[in-house]
Amino acid sequence: MNPYPRPMGKLIGELSKLPGIGPKTARRLSFYILGQNKNEVKSLADALLEAKEKINYCKICNHLTEAEKCSFCQSESRDQTQICVVESPRDVVAMEKTGEYNGLYHVLHGAISPMDGIGPDQIKLRNLMPRLENGAVEEIIVATDPNAEGDATALYLARLIKPLGVKVTRIAHGIPVGGDLEYADEVTLSKALEGRREL
Amino acid sequence: MNPYPRPMGKLIGELSKLPGIGPKTARRLSFYILGQNKNEVKSLADALLEAKEKINYCKICNHLTEAEKCSFCQSESRDQTQICVVESPRDVVAMEKTGEYNGLYHVLHGAISPMDGIGPDQIKLRNLMPRLENGAVEEIIVATDPNAEGDATALYLARLIKPLGVKVTRIAHGIPVGGDLEYADEVTLSKALEGRREL
Repeated sequence: MNPYPRPMGKLIGELSKLPGIGPKTARRLSFYILGQNKNEVKSLADALLEAKEKINYCKICNHLTEAEKCSFCQSESRDQTQICVVESPRDVVAMEKTGEYNGLYHVLHGAISPMDGIGPDQIKLRNLMPRLENGAVEEIIVATDPNAEGDATALYLARLIKPLGVKVTRIAHGIPVGGDLEYADEVTLSKALEGRREL
Repeated sequence: MNPYPRPMGKLIGELSKLPGIGPKTARRLSFYILGQNKNEVKSLADALLEAKEKINYCKICNHLTEAEKCSFCQSESRDQTQICVVESPRDVVAMEKTGEYNGLYHVLHGAISPMDGIGPDQIKLRNLMPRLENGAVEEIIVATDPNAEGDATALYLARLIKPLGVKVTRIAHGIPVGGDLEYADEVTLSKALEGRREL
């Protein structure tokens, strides 16, 4: 006999789809959620829908934003001569946590990976070149993950951009190789930023 | 500079309220959710709201149900002579997983704990006595948690119910003492059920 009412089984199923949430955790969360009052549950459901509905990609740098331009691209206090290229919005968050970088960003939403059939056209690279046209940008800091795909992407960017007379640097491999940029601690990531070298 | 758009910060905040979900996990889940398509997110939000709206307590045994009576109380194939008293709906799920019990349930939604000011009136005990009036019930199996509060509840129930001529048993302490019933494995819980002794 099924010990749960049907809507509860459905909730457990939905929660189990999230990364890192197994059936046992999903069950525990469901029981917790049923024990909350209606407003609390509504507020979680609304936050989910609102985040999905209101958040888009910045037209300029592809970072997450509520408006047409993200807060970095809108800001006049950020250094307009540097663009840090990262694989995902999570990496922007990690970079910001160092407190050491004050330039702009460009989010690729991926990395070049010929093995998986992902070439330069399958990542959000197309809108990077127009940003270099007015000559304001002096340096592109490539902060893709320190693995094969990230390195391939860095090399591709270097070959593409250096002929335009823009300096292309790569953050140092101070961050553990093979790791994920978003989990690096602030100090290591600061060191990596300091020790960047020209490609 | 805040690296997240506002609705995303809100979502992270809401997810962080869940038990076992820290700020780092909440951030990871939020990024994952933003990467899903709109229908998938809507389906999670709907499951949350539907579970909270449609699920109530069974009028007879206080277990979770969509209808007025839960599936156990509605069933004619369950043994009507036994009632297993547990602290929470999670414990019903744990008992069902043993596959060894086919009687009815009574969910107290708590346990007697004088230290915390929780007496017999603060748990859902009031609707247990009317269930014993027609004489059909022959045994009350007390499966409250094996800790001070669970034991106090068991003793209270024994004193209350034995004068009515109904047998009151306690599941054996085969389950680790001080632990939580819902996390016991099926075999241990089956053994505990087998080795129950009269109070």
